[in-house]
Amino acid sequence: MTATIVVGNPKPKSRTLKVAETLVEKLLTHGSYDLEIIDLADHTSEIFAWPSERMAALNARVAESDLAVFASPTYKASYTGLLKAFLDRYPANGLAGVTAIPVHTGGDLTHAMGPTVNLAPLLVELGAIVPGRGFYFVAGQMDHLDQIAGQAAAEYASNLARLAGVAAHTRAAAVAPSLSPLA
Amino acid sequence: MTATIVVGNPKPKSRTLKVAETLVEKLLTHGSYDLEIIDLADHTSEIFAWPSERMAALNARVAESDLAVFASPTYKASYTGLLKAFLDRYPANGLAGVTAIPVHTGGDLTHAMGPTVNLAPLLVELGAIVPGRGFYFVAGQMDHLDQIAGQAAAEYASNLARLAGVAAHTRAAAVAPSLSPLA
Amino acid sequence: MTATIVVGNPKPKSRTLKVAETLVEKLLTHGSYDLEIIDLADHTSEIFAWPSERMAALNARVAESDLAVFASPTYKASYTGLLKAFLDRYPANGLAGVTAIPVHTGGDLTHAMGPTVNLAPLLVELGAIVPGRGFYFVAGQMDHLDQIAGQAAAEYASNLARLAGVAAHTRAAAVAPSLSPLA
Amino acid sequence: MTATIVVGNPKPKSRTLKVAETLVEKLLTHGSYDLEIIDLADHTSEIFAWPSERMAALNARVAESDLAVFASPTYKASYTGLLKAFLDRYPANGLAGVTAIPVHTGGDLTHAMGPTVNLAPLLVELGAIVPGRGFYFVAGQMDHLDQIAGQAAAEYASNLARLAGVAAHTRAAAVAPSLSPLA
Repeated sequence: MTATIVVGNPKPKSRTLKVAETLVEKLLTHGSYDLEIIDLADHTSEIFAWPSERMAALNARVAESDLAVFASPTYKASYTGLLKAFLDRYPANGLAGVTAIPVHTGGDLTHAMGPTVNLAPLLVELGAIVPGRGFYFVAGQMDHLDQIAGQAAAEYASNLARLAGVAAHTRAAAVAPSLSPLA
Repeated sequence: MTATIVVGNPKPKSRTLKVAETLVEKLLTHGSYDLEIIDLADHTSEIFAWPSERMAALNARVAESDLAVFASPTYKASYTGLLKAFLDRYPANGLAGVTAIPVHTGGDLTHAMGPTVNLAPLLVELGAIVPGRGFYFVAGQMDHLDQIAGQAAAEYASNLARLAGVAAHTRAAAVAPSLSPLA
Repeated sequence: MTATIVVGNPKPKSRTLKVAETLVEKLLTHGSYDLEIIDLADHTSEIFAWPSERMAALNARVAESDLAVFASPTYKASYTGLLKAFLDRYPANGLAGVTAIPVHTGGDLTHAMGPTVNLAPLLVELGAIVPGRGFYFVAGQMDHLDQIAGQAAAEYASNLARLAGVAAHTRAAAVAPSLSPLA
Repeated sequence: MTATIVVGNPKPKSRTLKVAETLVEKLLTHGSYDLEIIDLADHTSEIFAWPSERMAALNARVAESDLAVFASPTYKASYTGLLKAFLDRYPANGLAGVTAIPVHTGGDLTHAMGPTVNLAPLLVELGAIVPGRGFYFVAGQMDHLDQIAGQAAAEYASNLARLAGVAAHTRAAAVAPSLSPLA
């Protein structure tokens, strides 16, 4: 299995990256997956270049992932422009079939709804599937990151297991899966 | 498997109900599930009564479902107050573990984002899992309902299958699944 | 000038009502306005009746207001179904020209974005004008209500004054003000 | 009076820019204002530079405007990452007191809710005041731009006039206008 972390902080090696890494570590079985980390801070000079082989390769890597965590600090109650600029490079449905987890970090709870009301709908618009609420992490809780990320991971794991149960009862897709927008 | 349809139209037996029924029929394997339909138009007199045995029973039925479709006509660009009033009766995380599909019907595409940006986050707030975009159906397309619902169902089936693949690689939840809000 | 408060709490005489009253008192010049309070808890039995003379009169009263405060406790991260059911009774653009302030109360900051991302767009969809952020009040701060509402009122007053400055430079509407949806 | 247009299209001199220009022309009295246009396509190389004198000057110009139009093509149902990256450079409340109009252009009505549910709350988070719905323009209607923008402008003018009426009845701000977040 392949997993990818995309970090939208304009500053490299951020706490937001650490939060996403911990969440993946808690969620997936050790040794069962390949993980790639894309720190968008390393790519700001090319994020608006078009075309760009380097950016295209990064976009493809994420689109081919089974699981992708999109992590951003909270800027103006929402995800960063840097993360959005990366996602803007996809065509319609560019993340079709990817299981995606939206993560925001922030100073306090004021913008705790952000990953659920802003980032999740954006990922879903691209065709990704979001298995539950977005994960919001208060930056001052880094000492408790293991425990908090562990609880979130347990909830995502539980949700995924439930979805797997429903999947077993769906009709064999007589119609080939359409990638056109539902709406 | 148990499936439930909850219809938020104050008028009974609406087209919105028909749209939801067709979506379920296209999504699930025939004969593999029990379906209950809750037409909230039949319960407006008790929707604000507290406590209410009848409403509690309906709430419980939905919460115990494997799959629930929540369908509403578009009122003021969003779900109806009637549907929200039903969902308001749940405690926090009252739909934990339920796979939920948000459906809006509307006159044209103007409010096509509604089920994805309004109803989906509401269901997710209650702990439900939404396997993709919301389904928006233009009411004037009833003659093509079978085909359009079939395409949406195929996309949901495809998404659920992908999620099942990811579920197989999650860690056995060392931490018991927390039902407390992630955020 | 006429001002109206609409409270969406299914329980009458709530703290949410008190919060809205204090906000209006801090915002408007004493003695310069008539205030009517509509506590929707008193009207649950008719909120889904159609037609209803009583509800129509309430709807009209709000639509004719210069200023209306819409106040709701936070239910599932958003406004209540009761408040939405009241607003659903309006035709398109039913609140055209009304200056509207969205107010949510809640237990902590987790859902502080609610009045800005959920209630404000709903009021705007109805043609109302929202002069700034929604006002979110943490219920445990009732002892500091005067001060907190005073600060919010000062910000709204400042915003309204700024808007008045811009209004002076708009073209005489050669086209009669359209009430059809912008979008 | 000063007005500014900020265009978030990564391609310069776009139709989105033309739409915003026409809206301003229809809204404001001829000869009564200075207009500056900031085409962010000209600044992609510095948008993530920190600090940047050039970007700081642009940010300041917009923050000092009486009226600012923020215009973006629809990317993934929302504003572009480029526009968000520009807005991310502001501190909290960086657009306090600015009257701001959100504009999206798009191929059809599917994402017509975008400027109202995505861009408007973002501008409001920064302290700006949005006098009504966002303006969504279907790109194929360029031949009717004058008329469509004229109707939207008339509605904004009408809204601003109403707000001016309310402003006259607000209390002299006993508390100095707070720039701290209401929520």
